[in-house]
Amino acid sequence: MRVLFEELVFSTKKKEEIIDITGDVRAVLGRWGAKNGAVLLFAPHATASIVINENEPGLIKDVLDLLNALAPPGAGYYHDRIDRNAHAHLRSAAFPPYAAIPVKDGKMLLGAWQRILFVENDGPRAQRRVIVEYLGE
Amino acid sequence: MRVLFEELVFSTKKKEEIIDITGDVRAVLGRWGAKNGAVLLFAPHATASIVINENEPGLIKDVLDLLNALAPPGAGYYHDRIDRNAHAHLRSAAFPPYAAIPVKDGKMLLGAWQRILFVENDGPRAQRRVIVEYLGE
Amino acid sequence: MRVLFEELVFSTKKKEEIIDITGDVRAVLGRWGAKNGAVLLFAPHATASIVINENEPGLIKDVLDLLNALAPPGAGYYHDRIDRNAHAHLRSAAFPPYAAIPVKDGKMLLGAWQRILFVENDGPRAQRRVIVEYLGE
Repeated sequence: MRVLFEELVFSTKKKEEIIDITGDVRAVLGRWGAKNGAVLLFAPHATASIVINENEPGLIKDVLDLLNALAPPGAGYYHDRIDRNAHAHLRSAAFPPYAAIPVKDGKMLLGAWQRILFVENDGPRAQRRVIVEYLGE
Repeated sequence: MRVLFEELVFSTKKKEEIIDITGDVRAVLGRWGAKNGAVLLFAPHATASIVINENEPGLIKDVLDLLNALAPPGAGYYHDRIDRNAHAHLRSAAFPPYAAIPVKDGKMLLGAWQRILFVENDGPRAQRRVIVEYLGE
Repeated sequence: MRVLFEELVFSTKKKEEIIDITGDVRAVLGRWGAKNGAVLLFAPHATASIVINENEPGLIKDVLDLLNALAPPGAGYYHDRIDRNAHAHLRSAAFPPYAAIPVKDGKMLLGAWQRILFVENDGPRAQRRVIVEYLGE
């Protein structure tokens, strides 16, 4: 059994933003010579999410709109008395910061329209990270 | 370590529909002689979801109603200018297309009322797939 | 490859409640001498959720408020004709009962503010369980 780790490190530019990390994850798996196993993506942040869906510019706006409808900023949250980002935490609670994807013959078994999307709920941030972990052969 | 894959392939009949795949997953694990490990279920579709919950006909309708309330069709989405299924993508973003379940002595450690439910958010479709992957002993 | 299981067993005191189980999971991993792998947390209940987020008392209330807004009790659900807890099932469908976290050198790679939170959506209950499973070296 092989257990391999890599960290994707990047900055975000906007308050809310979606970044497609599919290519980066593929590159890591290729470098490792992954065979059969699974990849676990995990963002070690309480105000970020990982979403598997299509990267179409209109849909990206729709996803951000849905997150905004789900937890609009400044809606009288208790946590805002301490920090001003309760909405971002709530979005990360509802849209979790991880995802798992099967890997076969070194390829992620994503569907034709599926991409791995990092969701920034509380940007901009100088450094965001996604842990790419492979468990497999 | 064993890494095993199987694909469940089926059609859906309605625009929105929930299909209980628990028995199919159990049958696959039985055929494999799975021991201790985990099963990863992954639908390679951007408009489907996997939900772990009770399969009670009333509740099934309630889940579909909740998805409809969360992302009603045709609510002015940007993605609808390209395709007419933004609501289905949003439901798959909010209710992810994967789930992981522990397997012990060949049995999934589901609770008494938990079933594995495939959610069709954009049917009917001639072919939908769920990848069943086992990682374990 | 090592595949290890443990069950956390506890009671809940309120109708809705969030219990931080991070310390318990850490203790289990320490006892096992976990190295590199992943931990899968799975609540075998159709009315509970696992959330990864900050354990700040105000935010805990905000998360419970969000769940209540998403699926308020007694909102004319079909499942309520059979049982009175459709809202709790719906919350567990929307906020899943599992989570996966990378483990490196025996430590979960949680972010500074991330904690593992068990969400009781239908309490109080004399016995709730979370399966802690480790897959790794």
